[in-house]
Amino acid sequence: MRMSELSERSGLPVASIKYYQREALVPFGEHTSANQSQYGEAHVDRLRLVRALIEVGGLTVASAKAVLAAIDNTEMPLDWAFGIAQRAASKSVPVVDDAPGAEAVQRVSALIDDRGLLVTDINPGRPIVARVLESYEALGRSELIDTLPAYLDAAMIVAAADLGAVGAAGERAAGERAAMTETVVVGTVLGDALFAGLRRIAQEHLSHTYYPAPTEAYDIDCEDEEE
Amino acid sequence: MRMSELSERSGLPVASIKYYQREALVPFGEHTSANQSQYGEAHVDRLRLVRALIEVGGLTVASAKAVLAAIDNTEMPLDWAFGIAQRAASKSVPVVDDAPGAEAVQRVSALIDDRGLLVTDINPGRPIVARVLESYEALGRSELIDTLPAYLDAAMIVAAADLGAVGAAGERAAGERAAMTETVVVGTVLGDALFAGLRRIAQEHLSHTYYPAPTEAYDIDCEDEEE
Repeated sequence: MRMSELSERSGLPVASIKYYQREALVPFGEHTSANQSQYGEAHVDRLRLVRALIEVGGLTVASAKAVLAAIDNTEMPLDWAFGIAQRAASKSVPVVDDAPGAEAVQRVSALIDDRGLLVTDINPGRPIVARVLESYEALGRSELIDTLPAYLDAAMIVAAADLGAVGAAGERAAGERAAMTETVVVGTVLGDALFAGLRRIAQEHLSHTYYPAPTEAYDIDCEDEEE
Repeated sequence: MRMSELSERSGLPVASIKYYQREALVPFGEHTSANQSQYGEAHVDRLRLVRALIEVGGLTVASAKAVLAAIDNTEMPLDWAFGIAQRAASKSVPVVDDAPGAEAVQRVSALIDDRGLLVTDINPGRPIVARVLESYEALGRSELIDTLPAYLDAAMIVAAADLGAVGAAGERAAGERAAMTETVVVGTVLGDALFAGLRRIAQEHLSHTYYPAPTEAYDIDCEDEEE
């Protein structure tokens, strides 16, 4: 296909496609004449992936490049691919800018040890969790520190679903490594946003239940027990 | 106390404090002479809160202002405060830039109805979840769409912990509304980051379990079953 069709199929303007090509996120096409190139399905797939990582997952171009290199390297162990995707997706979590204090870091290590979790020192979750705990502490919000065990339970459920999806991708693609790595990367990057969205839905439902407000102030779009 | 002590106690440079005062996030002090003001504990508390919302939670100054107004309004129902905090904290979720398609929006509504959840049409989680599902679909990652029920289960656990913390804050502060609203706001804004961090920890643990790699490639800091 020509560039115009590639643009239509991928949903990206030609200028963006050319930019991603210059940045080496997407390969150039096959030259068929001096100023024309041909593209295949692999180009469409790659552009859709780039778009999801950058536009939906919020990755920078540099982070997207690191993550695509993990997908393209079929020798890379899957848990390394997880690590690369985690680090890339952590750039959009605001708390990592500042290093947390030693006490908060130690508190996170204690939590990990108590649960018997196997987690390296370089896991990008450690400083994020430590920084949030530090803030809760500084603000005197001890009741929020107490939510930690429930949050970790929920994180284990989500992580098990993430790993299950990788296994399912492997079965579907007959063990093809690129399919599994792509599931690792896409699920890791976009899963943060998916969970944040579902948390807002769950919070609203429970807050109506726990702290009912006059219903006329709301436009509740849910006919339950309508019979 | 004087401005210099306020700066030390809050951990913020004087220039930042003056900026937040001009932006009306923090009140001015009491003038004691032509170029000197006095500050109290309430100023320290407010500055720590502003710092947590902006530096740790990633809110913009405008979003932080909306959230502080919710805390200051003691008449506001708690579930409205949740809504305001949710919307403010959703600005840092990258997926909300673009409106999702009708089909994905409908899929989210079906999920909400199936679970019998009471959620308004304006809940900011709806478009976020819809956009992620659209991306999974476009990328042909059906196995990631299948993670949705587990993610929602986990979101319900986290939301129950969030609401429980609000109740605990209310008991601790003898029903003082400002304490409860502050817990709503801080927990909603910082909870996204807390969960994202814990998810990375849980993923690494499970990925070592499911897909073990040669341990010498890692610096595993965990002596389990050492006896």
